[in-house]
Amino acid sequence: MIGSSILRAVEEKKLASEVSVFDKSNRVNDYLKKNFSVSVCSNISDTVKNSDLTIIASPLSSYKEILLSIKSDLKKNSILTDTGSAKKEINKIINNFNLKNIHWIASHPIAGTEYSGPEAGISNLFNNRWCILSADEQGNKDKISVLEKFWSTLGSKTKFMSFEDHDYVLSLTSHLPHAVAYSIVKTAINNEDKFKNDVIQYSAGGLRDFTRIAASDPLMWKDIFIDNSDNILKVLDNYSKNLDEIKSAIKNKASRNFFIN
Amino acid sequence: MIGSSILRAVEEKKLASEVSVFDKSNRVNDYLKKNFSVSVCSNISDTVKNSDLTIIASPLSSYKEILLSIKSDLKKNSILTDTGSAKKEINKIINNFNLKNIHWIASHPIAGTEYSGPEAGISNLFNNRWCILSADEQGNKDKISVLEKFWSTLGSKTKFMSFEDHDYVLSLTSHLPHAVAYSIVKTAINNEDKFKNDVIQYSAGGLRDFTRIAASDPLMWKDIFIDNSDNILKVLDNYSKNLDEIKSAIKNKASRNFFIN
Repeated sequence: MIGSSILRAVEEKKLASEVSVFDKSNRVNDYLKKNFSVSVCSNISDTVKNSDLTIIASPLSSYKEILLSIKSDLKKNSILTDTGSAKKEINKIINNFNLKNIHWIASHPIAGTEYSGPEAGISNLFNNRWCILSADEQGNKDKISVLEKFWSTLGSKTKFMSFEDHDYVLSLTSHLPHAVAYSIVKTAINNEDKFKNDVIQYSAGGLRDFTRIAASDPLMWKDIFIDNSDNILKVLDNYSKNLDEIKSAIKNKASRNFFIN
Repeated sequence: MIGSSILRAVEEKKLASEVSVFDKSNRVNDYLKKNFSVSVCSNISDTVKNSDLTIIASPLSSYKEILLSIKSDLKKNSILTDTGSAKKEINKIINNFNLKNIHWIASHPIAGTEYSGPEAGISNLFNNRWCILSADEQGNKDKISVLEKFWSTLGSKTKFMSFEDHDYVLSLTSHLPHAVAYSIVKTAINNEDKFKNDVIQYSAGGLRDFTRIAASDPLMWKDIFIDNSDNILKVLDNYSKNLDEIKSAIKNKASRNFFIN
């Protein structure tokens, strides 16, 4: 979904003289051939060898395999980026590859919907959204500017952040909300049969917002939760404490207003 | 907000030959006088004594005082309803008043926004939304039909439910989501100063949906949490168990996909 949104935006804005894509799914490849003027490569090396900018837009757990397949073919002096939601662990992995003359600069476009797959892409998905870039301190400033320019041409506001800060901030603004949404939807649907339909029917009172969040791609989220586990477990603990406070207040039918602090 | 939305809809659809309102806030009364063709009463008894339909649209904790002020003046054979989000406790309170020749039928329009106050009312707020009605078994069927007609004229789909079932279903679809939203927003804002702005800036990744839910009127929610505490504590316990399962899965970096079950 993210990859095809980039593709749509790049085509619409005519940002590249040539675009090559690789996907391991035949279904996706057929869709791309039918709907875009791009080279759909059957060999992943062919996708990267002439590319000034390589974008990995796949679940975090697939990066290692992808890197193994492309590391010797990446174009010299080109930019390698991604679209992942957790950064510290993948940065370690990529550093371990010790890529020479390749500028690895991470991207995290904070944009998306609950839908997955290339059909769900939207050309203006990144418009007016933040995109966070991260690189090591020795990162090439000119190449970072080029990548910033790329995202801002897609309509995004860009911000540079360290890998560590990115992962902590996102654990609060995105990963915790998703963990919570999964739990609440699970609580609501694991229910006495008598009320199953009622729970779905009357979800406009709040639950519906959570079902939308919880509907996001589970494989992608599993990877994020594992890669950013330290931060997520830390904020989940703080969250549980806040929840316990509300529970006690409800138990004590506390007269003080426990929701304004 | 709910009261003024009803008022707007009733005026727009010309549903009443006369409408009387009472609010204890002068600011609200001034607003109502300026914006609506209604009798704004300075005495609450005057509001109800000629009314075929009396609607209480105020926090649950105010019902007792309101009932004490109107119980002797309610018009014989009229309908008394409300718009509250929890039912069992207020039904007990109203039954204790032992009102004679008054048809108490509870209403819960499942509609709202995060905004409060009469200025935030919207005439089509109830359009295409559910409204749950509840009454004791001896409830007058004709009067229930009249009230159903009222809400369906405002665009709502109506459903009859016992007081108990209503409170359980809503604890899952609305009250649990609100408790969770409050906790998560509290977790996100009680943070190191360094990240305060970042957390607000990058909230599009999930947090923003929760801040909207958590922004609802805190007094109204405090009352709901206290009135429906048994159900809410029960579903909060189930929820905590589901959250603990996710925590363990993250801790163990479980290879099974813990989000699909």
